[in-house]
Amino acid sequence: MWHAVKTLNAHNGYVCALIAKVARYSVSAALRKESVALVYKSHGDPMQVLKLQKLNLPALGDSEVLIKMLAAPINPADINMVQGTYAVLPELPAVGGNEGVGQVLEVGGHVTSFRPGDWVIPRDAGLGTWRKELVLKEHALLRVPSDIPLACAATLSVNPCTAIRMLSDFENLQPGNSVIQNAANSGVGQAVIQIAATKGIKTINVVRNRPNFQTLTEYLQSLGADYVITEESLRKPEMKDIFKNIPHPRLALNCVGGKSATEMLRHLQHGGTMVTYGGMAKQPVTAPVSSLIFKNVKLCGFWMTQWKRDHEHEMGELNEMISSLCSLIRQGKLKAPAYTEVPITDYKTALENAMKPFSSSKQILVM
Amino acid sequence: MWHAVKTLNAHNGYVCALIAKVARYSVSAALRKESVALVYKSHGDPMQVLKLQKLNLPALGDSEVLIKMLAAPINPADINMVQGTYAVLPELPAVGGNEGVGQVLEVGGHVTSFRPGDWVIPRDAGLGTWRKELVLKEHALLRVPSDIPLACAATLSVNPCTAIRMLSDFENLQPGNSVIQNAANSGVGQAVIQIAATKGIKTINVVRNRPNFQTLTEYLQSLGADYVITEESLRKPEMKDIFKNIPHPRLALNCVGGKSATEMLRHLQHGGTMVTYGGMAKQPVTAPVSSLIFKNVKLCGFWMTQWKRDHEHEMGELNEMISSLCSLIRQGKLKAPAYTEVPITDYKTALENAMKPFSSSKQILVM
Repeated sequence: MWHAVKTLNAHNGYVCALIAKVARYSVSAALRKESVALVYKSHGDPMQVLKLQKLNLPALGDSEVLIKMLAAPINPADINMVQGTYAVLPELPAVGGNEGVGQVLEVGGHVTSFRPGDWVIPRDAGLGTWRKELVLKEHALLRVPSDIPLACAATLSVNPCTAIRMLSDFENLQPGNSVIQNAANSGVGQAVIQIAATKGIKTINVVRNRPNFQTLTEYLQSLGADYVITEESLRKPEMKDIFKNIPHPRLALNCVGGKSATEMLRHLQHGGTMVTYGGMAKQPVTAPVSSLIFKNVKLCGFWMTQWKRDHEHEMGELNEMISSLCSLIRQGKLKAPAYTEVPITDYKTALENAMKPFSSSKQILVM
Repeated sequence: MWHAVKTLNAHNGYVCALIAKVARYSVSAALRKESVALVYKSHGDPMQVLKLQKLNLPALGDSEVLIKMLAAPINPADINMVQGTYAVLPELPAVGGNEGVGQVLEVGGHVTSFRPGDWVIPRDAGLGTWRKELVLKEHALLRVPSDIPLACAATLSVNPCTAIRMLSDFENLQPGNSVIQNAANSGVGQAVIQIAATKGIKTINVVRNRPNFQTLTEYLQSLGADYVITEESLRKPEMKDIFKNIPHPRLALNCVGGKSATEMLRHLQHGGTMVTYGGMAKQPVTAPVSSLIFKNVKLCGFWMTQWKRDHEHEMGELNEMISSLCSLIRQGKLKAPAYTEVPITDYKTALENAMKPFSSSKQILVM
């Protein structure tokens, strides 16, 4: 049996413990049947360390649910976790993947929230979603409607949730206000664009320059992006033209760090906030002293996993968020990022594509 | 006539306007009498550009107060303002100095808040306090009790106010909690030590290493400092010993920037805040992405001048702060930093001493 307890030692020396959750397999319990999972026994190159292997499923407890996973994405954090470079790491061996959607096959005698056929997503990260079947405690799951596209359900619990929280929890944004974000074509970035557009919030979207910049620009504009610019443009006079049309941003969303973050800070309004939720450039966030003192900008971070834990006993708020996101999805206002479905048996292709630079198609494993 | 309107262009490109205040002199108005002031007509080396010169005082308006300045300190920000390196700069020519205490000599017919003999301090920065006499609007002044030491009154409006606000406005500190600060022997630093001690808040005080480190340590301990360490010690294992006795700080007060700030961040508690109020190292503040995301630390800034402006219409809060500080002073719990009184005519000596590295005696000009 394996209770996925995780500890980490982030490079700043801070030790954080991921709370024990309950993705279980067992060789000792009465055998129900076998599952197949992408397991890694040591950290390293995902292409090398991840192996598709059989796992025995435990007998179903009274408060447990047997789930058939339907689809699970490969997110950058999942890759970093396998590589051992993420700030929180599982005990090994571990099953890869932190989000995805499954269908309830069977429920224990005391389970009241779910019925066979329901679509469910994990409430928390760290459960190992790259597998065919698994047994989870009832309280570790959230129901999602089964009338939304599979890819939307599979990618609902991390990126769109991160986007909606960052747009809501730091600045009181009103229609006409603006937001600037880097890595704007990431899963979170695309969700930010779409959710902001529904609220009448203008977005300035920064992406790395690339051969297909114009195509990407048009795609992001089709989602509702007001401005799409390159990292280089952040320093250039053309920024002034943008601010003839829309106000300076009250909120900056930083998934990159380094220069990109510092440049975004320069464009923030007096009193604005920069929320860091990723560090793709692997460089720290640097703020001029004068921005802090005289411009009163605030810097903070956001981690969806922490938010969910902080709100563990407020199911209402979590359900409300999921429900409002599903409503946007049904209205066609929130699309899944461009994606490719890959059978789990062909996981090596999916991993390879997921790790390509400028990868613009989310790899989703289907089981 | 000269309404001290100031504009600046901080190096981050942000333009902030210091609101017009009313330190006046005039050659055209009916001559009352002359004052003497330390005036600079261009930015540069304070030893070169500051000149003691006569200024004519304007006739006293109905809502105005004629003040004889008693004492005014030379603060680092005053020096930077003369040098032209501070983020906010006055229109030139300007009179140096931003705080100090004066005595009311005469009041206009409509003035109700003050009487001759009262001690007053300017409500805002930028009035030019290095002078013998000046005329100010009634609303530009605050009364302070005349039973506190002159040096305390002269240095009340910036450093102790900054200290008390930073200890109150960012984290809800309880007795037994701890605070870490660099530049701990600065005027603000000494006030932080003393005010924290009255609240049962533990202080970890970081200073640059120096020949008289032991003497300085003993002095800061006499004010109530719990720990005094050098910048180098911030990285060393001895820090662990401190945290056997007191909790990791919830609040870091940063007057330095650069490495010092990053090192303090490492010791912050999960969810803690670093408030930047100065940048002595002339280096930006750098935070690891993981501290922001996984440790949830927050970075912000504090500028007393801005606080006063934001609270311009809340005289109650400002008066309450001054009154509680004066109460601590009377109880002997808040001393002025070590200081030297220098006649304004000997301003060159005072400036020279104020600009020495490791200067440990505040220079106070007396008129």
